[in-house]
Amino acid sequence: MIERPSPAVDDGRFPAKRVAGDLVSIEADIFADGHDVLSAVVLHRHQSESKPRETRMTAMANDRWRAEVQVGELGFYYFTIEAWVDHFLTWQRDLQKRDKADLPMQFQIGLEMIRAAASRAKARDKKRLAHFIQVLEGDDEIEDKAHDLKSDELLDLMWRNADRSLATRLECEYAIEVDRPKAAFSTWYELFPRSFGTFRDVEAQLPRIARMGFDVLYLPPIHPIGKTFRKGRNNVVTAGPNDVGSPWAIGAAEGGHTAINKQLGTIDDFKHLMSVAKENGLEVALDIAFQTSPDHPYVREHEEWFLKRPDGTIQYAENPPKKYQDIYPFYFESDKWRALWDELGGVFRFWIDQGVRIFRVDNPHTKPLPFWHWVIGELKKQQPDLIFLSEAFTRPKISYWLAKAGFTQSYTYFAWRNTKYELTQYFSDITKPPVSDFFRPNAWPNTPDILTEYLQYGGRPAFIIRLMLAATLSANYGIYGPAFERMLHEAREPGSEEYRDSEKYEIKRWEKSEDDLSELIGLVNRVRRENPALQQNGTLMFHTTSNDEVLCYSKSAGDNVVVTVVNVDPHNTQSAWLELDLPALQLDANRPFQVHDLLSGARYTWHGGRNYVQLNPSVVPAHIFRIRRKVRSERDFEYFL
Amino acid sequence: MIERPSPAVDDGRFPAKRVAGDLVSIEADIFADGHDVLSAVVLHRHQSESKPRETRMTAMANDRWRAEVQVGELGFYYFTIEAWVDHFLTWQRDLQKRDKADLPMQFQIGLEMIRAAASRAKARDKKRLAHFIQVLEGDDEIEDKAHDLKSDELLDLMWRNADRSLATRLECEYAIEVDRPKAAFSTWYELFPRSFGTFRDVEAQLPRIARMGFDVLYLPPIHPIGKTFRKGRNNVVTAGPNDVGSPWAIGAAEGGHTAINKQLGTIDDFKHLMSVAKENGLEVALDIAFQTSPDHPYVREHEEWFLKRPDGTIQYAENPPKKYQDIYPFYFESDKWRALWDELGGVFRFWIDQGVRIFRVDNPHTKPLPFWHWVIGELKKQQPDLIFLSEAFTRPKISYWLAKAGFTQSYTYFAWRNTKYELTQYFSDITKPPVSDFFRPNAWPNTPDILTEYLQYGGRPAFIIRLMLAATLSANYGIYGPAFERMLHEAREPGSEEYRDSEKYEIKRWEKSEDDLSELIGLVNRVRRENPALQQNGTLMFHTTSNDEVLCYSKSAGDNVVVTVVNVDPHNTQSAWLELDLPALQLDANRPFQVHDLLSGARYTWHGGRNYVQLNPSVVPAHIFRIRRKVRSERDFEYFL
Repeated sequence: MIERPSPAVDDGRFPAKRVAGDLVSIEADIFADGHDVLSAVVLHRHQSESKPRETRMTAMANDRWRAEVQVGELGFYYFTIEAWVDHFLTWQRDLQKRDKADLPMQFQIGLEMIRAAASRAKARDKKRLAHFIQVLEGDDEIEDKAHDLKSDELLDLMWRNADRSLATRLECEYAIEVDRPKAAFSTWYELFPRSFGTFRDVEAQLPRIARMGFDVLYLPPIHPIGKTFRKGRNNVVTAGPNDVGSPWAIGAAEGGHTAINKQLGTIDDFKHLMSVAKENGLEVALDIAFQTSPDHPYVREHEEWFLKRPDGTIQYAENPPKKYQDIYPFYFESDKWRALWDELGGVFRFWIDQGVRIFRVDNPHTKPLPFWHWVIGELKKQQPDLIFLSEAFTRPKISYWLAKAGFTQSYTYFAWRNTKYELTQYFSDITKPPVSDFFRPNAWPNTPDILTEYLQYGGRPAFIIRLMLAATLSANYGIYGPAFERMLHEAREPGSEEYRDSEKYEIKRWEKSEDDLSELIGLVNRVRRENPALQQNGTLMFHTTSNDEVLCYSKSAGDNVVVTVVNVDPHNTQSAWLELDLPALQLDANRPFQVHDLLSGARYTWHGGRNYVQLNPSVVPAHIFRIRRKVRSERDFEYFL
Repeated sequence: MIERPSPAVDDGRFPAKRVAGDLVSIEADIFADGHDVLSAVVLHRHQSESKPRETRMTAMANDRWRAEVQVGELGFYYFTIEAWVDHFLTWQRDLQKRDKADLPMQFQIGLEMIRAAASRAKARDKKRLAHFIQVLEGDDEIEDKAHDLKSDELLDLMWRNADRSLATRLECEYAIEVDRPKAAFSTWYELFPRSFGTFRDVEAQLPRIARMGFDVLYLPPIHPIGKTFRKGRNNVVTAGPNDVGSPWAIGAAEGGHTAINKQLGTIDDFKHLMSVAKENGLEVALDIAFQTSPDHPYVREHEEWFLKRPDGTIQYAENPPKKYQDIYPFYFESDKWRALWDELGGVFRFWIDQGVRIFRVDNPHTKPLPFWHWVIGELKKQQPDLIFLSEAFTRPKISYWLAKAGFTQSYTYFAWRNTKYELTQYFSDITKPPVSDFFRPNAWPNTPDILTEYLQYGGRPAFIIRLMLAATLSANYGIYGPAFERMLHEAREPGSEEYRDSEKYEIKRWEKSEDDLSELIGLVNRVRRENPALQQNGTLMFHTTSNDEVLCYSKSAGDNVVVTVVNVDPHNTQSAWLELDLPALQLDANRPFQVHDLLSGARYTWHGGRNYVQLNPSVVPAHIFRIRRKVRSERDFEYFL
């Protein structure tokens, strides 16, 4: 019996996610009746191969078996598992426990198995098996023969040529989707290009953003903006003559989802921006928002893609009693849904042809879920290096489904998880299987839509705390940069999470400010780049502290261990005893070890897991300690990959 | 999307188990894109029906939906789930939030949906929908029409005639196997009939066993016993001339698995025993052990079912260096395996034809696992009232697989779980899904093979403690009766779990003893019969106590709550503060309540969940308290079924 193979998302309905270079631990429960010795292999292949390779599995505790397979190429790997009762290994195990008197008969039994293996074997194996048969049939002493039967070479030969005619194989192949490393480790900076002028003006910002350590530049929609029912500043219903409108009200006479707002430049200017970004180590991520303004060309050309009301008008977006007359949703239940899907797939293809490889998808949960499964699958078939970030701030199961169906990364509830308890629960859930096999969090302390109460009222310490948490809890994180750097914290009105004078509806002039957070952001991002431990989430571990306002957690990779301690109270100094779980970190609890605070540069020598910290939020509310550990064997840190 | 349906053992590979009369809670995660209202139904049918019935599901928290379905007939029920976006319910929900100015247009939209429903509807529904259409088209005031649109009748009509053309249905049906109630609640007594003489002599014991409250009489194998290599008393290698041999060394010249040892009587005597047992409310369970003595007729007639060694002799059972020359295992890898399977299936059929409905299967984990899946499946197709008890004292995953594959009940590790921590962990695991959906524990404090150290050294209190635990933790339990009643506790040698002078190898004379446990056993079994709470495991809940030697747990069913408190230390008086979780038990924490000790007859009034107990093992080491609770609604105790 071969049961519970892993990784297997929803029992294999969806692929598990990994990135190129990962060592994947493939496991299953494997057992049979009786007490015989079993053998098992993983059969694995890249999508480009038809014949699988075999990797031998080894038994761990409680009938769980395991093998490790490295995935090097982008695209899909497929694996299955085969196992069999190994009569030769059983015989060999028992031989050592038998009376000497039994040996002659047992040699006969063993010889029969070796002869059968020789008849199955080819080339060199056949020759070597023939050699063993000759020795065993010869006149050597019983003890010498018994010794030969234990040789590693014979065991290997017999294992390779085992009788697998009664082997069991899993009914199907399980898929692993391999993305490029940026899918698992990325640092995003969001800005509205129009606030800087044109694409050319944005280019001037790139060196500074790159110096801060970002590698993705995310732009809200860059298309023409509708005029009909355009919203004014602060989202008022009627726009003034100079109001620029929301970039998400996509489409005007001059074009829709494949056109560029002429205030920003031309398609060539956009490509130029991408190439300058690339020179600065930045990739441009585009926003894809599948909805239209009433002025979008689709409204004229494809009225069948919109729902009509009995009076013949198009049904605008609404959430009664709220009405969004400036936005038309697509009508996916239309008879012409197939053409609509193709058209929307074409929008992605257009931008892929311009060189875009990263898309941030707006509200995917309000479009048919199967559409995403289809469109992402089709696009990645041709372009396996694509990255899709899902902006589904919705119920957890829908958000998870979108991740299973293909989204590479997902926005999270991080912005609303502020206490030690909330952060511990939430990140424990999303960084461990089964969730981590399909869901890659991308943590944002703020976005143009989200200015949390914590940031509104916590002052500068709140911004620093949320930055530290995002950057060290989640290997993918991002900020709505100009507002975050400047610690903008004024809401439109009390109880709102909207920015006052939001950049969504107006052009902002971002003056350089002296005491902004850019230097600290740059430092934190450098720490992320220099410490492999922070470039993945799978090893995240929370450690006990004596204070509910002090959070302590670690990540590790090879010899690199990073322990982060954060005071989550932005208003008061907090102190705590930490109880680092040194055995779990594979650190020797009996030797002193050095911790190096990568924020302050200070170095301390700690003795044992119990250590005292005090964090004053008005100075700096966090430590990011690096510890170097000895890796005792390759095996040790494989568990951390 | 419809995900994670339950009950579903291994995602539906195996049926979930229930007994006739159970109310089954069927659940799934159900969600769709957007914010529309969903509707969902369970489609369920007994195997004898081709057309499923529908039961409407209701949404609970976090996109989990639920419906309850009663299973009344034995055999298999099948269910699947269908769900759809309900446009009418969505429209109706939103209507209440709309401006009055929007109503005329919304009435048009609603009317279109009602007209479409009327065109789908039949008979009375069609007529009633036509009536609503007429009213809405008429001249009533807007407010009156809006009122009509909220009527429950219209909502019901629209729900019944909903547009399900875009509904989603689970890909397959999930199975629920329904057994008779004894599968879930049974009380077993094991005895060796030969120690009482013949079957006729056993009949004389039945009234006493029935008075003690047992309902299953389990007999070790009743077949002729081999003479070749017969084992002597205390399992010595060579039998003396008067040694009777082990009943598990099955088969002699006079017959094998379908013959009766003539010292016990004839097949008619056996049937007579069964009918006297029935008169006493007892059912006879037979032991099925698929192995043979060297004298079994199969050895002559079907040598192809046994593995030959190179010298032509048959391979006896062995676990090197141990040899069991008195036992031949079947060779299931034989080319003639198909005939062997059929023959072994025929053994069951033979005894079924004699009227046996309960089988205790010896060591099923040393025969091919798929054999059990096949044979139990085939037998229950014709006889769904069969009960199979699996004696698989092996690794947990194998034991679980056998339960999934069809065994009705399973022996457990209960005998070796003695501490509060062990008992709490183990019974929490096996009484909750996923395990409880396929695995029904049958707890035995002793068997002819198992005399634990705890019983060897714990004196009378140890026997009472283990009896209380088995009888109240597990709805199915049993004892190897004559030895348990008399508290036999001497092992063959130190470190052994075998009885000294084991009844497996000799005839015992069981004299009536004055201070045996029969009266207490009778009392405990009466408590089980009178308290529905103890007749199932699903509501088992452990409560905190201040002492690691004092275990406290409850079970409940309807108004019946049973709280058991056990001192698991057989040597010392222990006292403890109990922290009963009254809200979880649906008891009002603000009112005093009466607890009635069903062992001593004492009644106490308790105030709140915190209460003191003291248990002296030399008097009685347990309380079994009954509490009556008010059932506030049917719904309340449905959760406990």
